[in-house]
Amino acid sequence: MNPSPYTLYYSPGAASLVVHWVLLELDLPHALALVDTKAGAQKRPDYLVLNPNGVVPTLVIDGKPQYEAAALIAYLAEAHPERGLAPLPGDPRRADFLQWMFNLANMVQPLFRQWWYPHEPAGEAQAETVLAHVRPRIEAQWDRIDAHLAANGPYLLGDAASVADFHLVMLMRWSRSMPKPATEWPNLAALAAKLKARPSFAALYAREGLTEWA
Amino acid sequence: MNPSPYTLYYSPGAASLVVHWVLLELDLPHALALVDTKAGAQKRPDYLVLNPNGVVPTLVIDGKPQYEAAALIAYLAEAHPERGLAPLPGDPRRADFLQWMFNLANMVQPLFRQWWYPHEPAGEAQAETVLAHVRPRIEAQWDRIDAHLAANGPYLLGDAASVADFHLVMLMRWSRSMPKPATEWPNLAALAAKLKARPSFAALYAREGLTEWA
Repeated sequence: MNPSPYTLYYSPGAASLVVHWVLLELDLPHALALVDTKAGAQKRPDYLVLNPNGVVPTLVIDGKPQYEAAALIAYLAEAHPERGLAPLPGDPRRADFLQWMFNLANMVQPLFRQWWYPHEPAGEAQAETVLAHVRPRIEAQWDRIDAHLAANGPYLLGDAASVADFHLVMLMRWSRSMPKPATEWPNLAALAAKLKARPSFAALYAREGLTEWA
Repeated sequence: MNPSPYTLYYSPGAASLVVHWVLLELDLPHALALVDTKAGAQKRPDYLVLNPNGVVPTLVIDGKPQYEAAALIAYLAEAHPERGLAPLPGDPRRADFLQWMFNLANMVQPLFRQWWYPHEPAGEAQAETVLAHVRPRIEAQWDRIDAHLAANGPYLLGDAASVADFHLVMLMRWSRSMPKPATEWPNLAALAAKLKARPSFAALYAREGLTEWA
């Protein structure tokens, strides 16, 4: 038996979650390597060799470490097109797929970095101020995406789910303890409910030992 | 004669620059629509119909408006694979291509948003503090990318340029007035010099009326 081509370096509930979820959804054999982020293992020299950003996920693909969660799920979906989780180049939905993948990576996910690490933009003394400023900016993103889904849903690309939806649901999960979590928006809530009903989501929660937002 | 399939809504020097540059590099017929961002035209109802984010670029493709600069250049490169600016799915360089496209969009470009709009994270009173904090964070990105190019260059994917390099050079251009611009890093400077020597760069500057960082 050949060794698995994929090894995922992960931490439960972190940005590695969506890569783990897509590996399970696509039923791809893979090994898992836990990174103890609470102990700072992602900043140690042995991990920085794999990922110079010092974050999870890293996915080793046929021996080569690669990073960026959105890139990894796009790669996996494109490598297994028969599962239909990414329209390939030439498909009329391709421009929409790329738009939403990059929109989540460039406009939505960076706001959560400010939510999780509010000391970064202006220092510890301003952390509360950053939280107060980023909250309405995240809510404005939910407004925009919910309106898109109302007009064009139920998924980001219309009738069928893609890995962009999996990424969106992970970002929604990150809002679960905010004053107004993403599930307060009806079309976002409906999309999340559909994806959370997939068997891969229960398997993911069992594997990562997660209970919140089940 | 058929009308051009592409219309680019742009503002000189903004994030639309890289889309304009790739249209010229690929020699694709296109129409241009100037958006007067200094007058706030990107926030007006007629533009928000095209792009609910209220930013440039928007690229109308066969009548349908699409957004996100990185998505648009990936789309254009994939739609014209014979020009070699994006390895397609199945190419051994595909994972690297996706990694760098999303890494620039998710880890580098959002820091420039803090550099250009330093009031956003914590209000006007903290704008100078945000600038002081974001400067070393941007410089750390140049450190990381320059080290990658030193080991794996001269381009992000190795021997051949891709649209990821065009995006990188636009981001480098945005650092031109910073205390330590990206061109202070030797491998970044060499990459930018190669891309700026292409005829498409001179054409871009002429079309957008740009002079700085020529």
